[in-house]
Amino acid sequence: MAEPRNILFIMFDQLRWDYLSCYGHPHLKTPHIDRLAAMGVRFDRAYIQSPLCGPSRMSTYTGRYVHSHGASWNNVPLKVGELTMGDHLRDLGMGCWLVGKTHMKADAEGMRRLGLEPDSVIGARVSECGFDIFERDDGMRPEGPDGYYDAGGALKYNEYLRVKGYEGENPWHDYANSGIDDAGNVLSGWFLNNSDQPANIREEDSETPYLTRRGMEFIAGATGPWCCHLSYIKPHWPYIVPEPYAAMYGPQDFLPRVATQAEQETDHPVFKGFQNAPVGRAFARDDTRDKVLRAYMGLIKQCDDQIGVLFDWLEKTGRMDDTMIVVTSDHGDFMGDHWMGEKTFFHDASVRVPLIIYDPSEQADATRGTVCDTLVECIDLLPTFVDVAGGDAGRLDHILEGRSLLPLLRGGDAPARDAVFCEYDYSATPLANKLGLHPKLARMFMVFDGRWKMIHFEGGFRPMLFDLDSDPGEVDDLGASDAHADIRTALYDRLFAWACRPGARTTISNAALMAARGKTARKGVLIGIVEEGDLEPELVAKYVGRKARDMRASTIKN
Amino acid sequence: MAEPRNILFIMFDQLRWDYLSCYGHPHLKTPHIDRLAAMGVRFDRAYIQSPLCGPSRMSTYTGRYVHSHGASWNNVPLKVGELTMGDHLRDLGMGCWLVGKTHMKADAEGMRRLGLEPDSVIGARVSECGFDIFERDDGMRPEGPDGYYDAGGALKYNEYLRVKGYEGENPWHDYANSGIDDAGNVLSGWFLNNSDQPANIREEDSETPYLTRRGMEFIAGATGPWCCHLSYIKPHWPYIVPEPYAAMYGPQDFLPRVATQAEQETDHPVFKGFQNAPVGRAFARDDTRDKVLRAYMGLIKQCDDQIGVLFDWLEKTGRMDDTMIVVTSDHGDFMGDHWMGEKTFFHDASVRVPLIIYDPSEQADATRGTVCDTLVECIDLLPTFVDVAGGDAGRLDHILEGRSLLPLLRGGDAPARDAVFCEYDYSATPLANKLGLHPKLARMFMVFDGRWKMIHFEGGFRPMLFDLDSDPGEVDDLGASDAHADIRTALYDRLFAWACRPGARTTISNAALMAARGKTARKGVLIGIVEEGDLEPELVAKYVGRKARDMRASTIKN
Repeated sequence: MAEPRNILFIMFDQLRWDYLSCYGHPHLKTPHIDRLAAMGVRFDRAYIQSPLCGPSRMSTYTGRYVHSHGASWNNVPLKVGELTMGDHLRDLGMGCWLVGKTHMKADAEGMRRLGLEPDSVIGARVSECGFDIFERDDGMRPEGPDGYYDAGGALKYNEYLRVKGYEGENPWHDYANSGIDDAGNVLSGWFLNNSDQPANIREEDSETPYLTRRGMEFIAGATGPWCCHLSYIKPHWPYIVPEPYAAMYGPQDFLPRVATQAEQETDHPVFKGFQNAPVGRAFARDDTRDKVLRAYMGLIKQCDDQIGVLFDWLEKTGRMDDTMIVVTSDHGDFMGDHWMGEKTFFHDASVRVPLIIYDPSEQADATRGTVCDTLVECIDLLPTFVDVAGGDAGRLDHILEGRSLLPLLRGGDAPARDAVFCEYDYSATPLANKLGLHPKLARMFMVFDGRWKMIHFEGGFRPMLFDLDSDPGEVDDLGASDAHADIRTALYDRLFAWACRPGARTTISNAALMAARGKTARKGVLIGIVEEGDLEPELVAKYVGRKARDMRASTIKN
Repeated sequence: MAEPRNILFIMFDQLRWDYLSCYGHPHLKTPHIDRLAAMGVRFDRAYIQSPLCGPSRMSTYTGRYVHSHGASWNNVPLKVGELTMGDHLRDLGMGCWLVGKTHMKADAEGMRRLGLEPDSVIGARVSECGFDIFERDDGMRPEGPDGYYDAGGALKYNEYLRVKGYEGENPWHDYANSGIDDAGNVLSGWFLNNSDQPANIREEDSETPYLTRRGMEFIAGATGPWCCHLSYIKPHWPYIVPEPYAAMYGPQDFLPRVATQAEQETDHPVFKGFQNAPVGRAFARDDTRDKVLRAYMGLIKQCDDQIGVLFDWLEKTGRMDDTMIVVTSDHGDFMGDHWMGEKTFFHDASVRVPLIIYDPSEQADATRGTVCDTLVECIDLLPTFVDVAGGDAGRLDHILEGRSLLPLLRGGDAPARDAVFCEYDYSATPLANKLGLHPKLARMFMVFDGRWKMIHFEGGFRPMLFDLDSDPGEVDDLGASDAHADIRTALYDRLFAWACRPGARTTISNAALMAARGKTARKGVLIGIVEEGDLEPELVAKYVGRKARDMRASTIKN
């Protein structure tokens, strides 16, 4: 097969790494995604850069750590000037399009300052995280007493639903994300008690099939090399799914809860704080967890079926032959493990994600169906795409903090990564208030070297530490263990080196810095030169043998 | 007196903190600068953020650490999107103008990407570090076999010199920065052996008086509140000065060299590397040091005399009554101390600078003539200016990493800074080659808490440590001392916390993050809510009591 001409970059939202059969789930069968794994490489130790939609995605889309790009929480704008996937790929002649979710918020103030109009081509791209928009759908149209969470959320999808006969001002909520009782009352998917209800929507009109079709529509009409970010909303909450998926899974299919009494009795204020948040308390209840798991697994099964539809179509249209396909997620979901819900902490349930890459090139034939256990990060995707688009990600290593996975896909050696890093900024959460933390201190960092996972907390809290070799469930916190002081010291050294990295030095390449060494003298800057004989004649030529008039006491006036 | 309406921000280049009489120099009398100290506050422990023109200035002009803005060496462009002094002050209705040097290099690639034309108003400001340009003069027109160091350097000044009768294509070099012998041969100021020669220029045509006049011309014509950055080129090299200054100082006036045999025998590869650079070797020679000191002290004396001219004029024109005046420098000069020349290391000779601020407000009357020994940094200036311009720097503390000095000027309490930080990136220097360092590793960091100064080196080198209480000359390196391991550990903790700071999170204020705590539910995002009764009715109102049609098995087609 030829070199990949296009990239289909599929992201699910909140899909745990271990809820696919190719990653070992014993009951949730995902044959279509598994098929991609059989055709490509399944990365078994892929980590995201922040356990929350917005910052994780901004890292994926910029190829940079959150500590570098700064968009550290949902709706913290990605600042003007940060280079995105679209910037890099378009420079290489590859279009970069969005179908689905980004959770990007534009830096309106920065745009105003630079005079960038949101409706100009450049302004629109800056507003949309570098993507050209086929359809943006963040899948979010919540409404509360202060209005809509996202004024532009799901507008197009709502319009689609209305055309299909779903009535009201917010069918996204009333149908796609709610059930219904016999009296016609909406059973909102926002209430976890309703998660075992079937969504009140025909399956083909629900969000995942809708976005699949939108993706195919884009691809069918696309010309030129393209990267399509097909970015699904699910299995992210609201946790509710239509039939037949709603009734597909029950307790016999669930993974057991990974949680211990010792965890519940932790003395760690931040860990305990997350357990005590409403979502932790809700998922600590078995009845709630069971209801949600039915929906969550059903949603994933639906995702897999839609992937099947998509892949069949790609084969039929020939795109499977010229398109690299990536399947991943922006983060996982605790689902009650460690007495937590959601994702905003650093256990594998949250920060480890599925990552499967299919490369149609014959150079990748040797790796098809293999599993790669190299530590990789979501910031590695953009360098990979740059290489696929014909660029050289290594030349961009002053901007891109990840590394191309192409060598791993093609059976070559890639420099092993010796640790992965993840961050979480909870400065806008109620927990920061409870702990009395200034926004600068309500932040935590993870370093994981493949065995030891340490969590550092700003704000004066002790670290947490897990040995994943002996404790793969991450339930035994060694953060205060005297016996592990040296381990922690070594991990702190790693984290310190990481924190000191020149992440902001993006306007000059490392190659240019190396090429500059010793070259200022060639432009006449002579430092520490006592007399002309100290340098070779060429370097002083402009400064010797010159004649001038004596102007020291000149009285020439103008 | 009224609140200051304007700011005159005077910066010298490479002026050591201790080469002014108000800072204790016993022989170099600088009565005019001293007079400003008597009228304002003299900060005795002011530190810059990087010991090199470009990065130090970019920190001053952005109010941010080098690790945050990324312009870590001369001619590393300041990236589009970094907010500058001009951005902040213009937002407050104060103009921000340049007369002199910035060492700014525009981010041409970033501007191209965002469609910013260099000749548009916004593009010009982005190109010039946020300043509107009255005159840009970096004072640099070196020429070597590869051409001019700065294609635009000193063009206007050269034109001025030509009009005044100084001939040739580069009178900046041949006259302003060279001497002449009896045969009419140019004695280039690039060669330190010529530093004791008088520059071949009438004193009033040399760079310092020229820029003083340009500053007065700007101020005379300025309307509206303004900040004028009068940014002198001197006493920066080429070290040469016209008469009468050239003959003004001799060995009896020199400070003794601060340097020990132990320093020369250091086992530290980076420290030794700087000593061994040509400039270190040159300044280790007493004859060279003596010649340069004559010029250096003469240049400073000339600077002080010009400050006298300027201040007299400001008084005459009334500007002394409505203008805050700041005098500082971008870094110092080793002048052979510690067997080094130039400035690219972290001893006080290099990183401690004079900083005098005169505030005409009567609120500052109580502090006139006082000395403030609080640790301050050059990034504190921009927050101070924001406050003077009527803003609130505290509200910008997600962008500005310094703190306003206004409370200190007005006798109030300011939160004490417990450490200052400085960085140096030598990744583009020959030393990085000699040490075999990748650009990411050729970097070093200083933390100084008022007593202990520690230098951390990337690349695997041991730290250096000085106790300035017992060793104010900083000649006794305790970086390998077992007895000081705890001190180093504590300083490493400080540096780690500093490196982890959210320097890139500039698009949302800390106040906004705090205000957001617990507010997403008010926009309808309900996380971990099991049933509607778990929340107050207002928060669930949009999700309850709704009616829908049963669409689960609907066969409505469109």
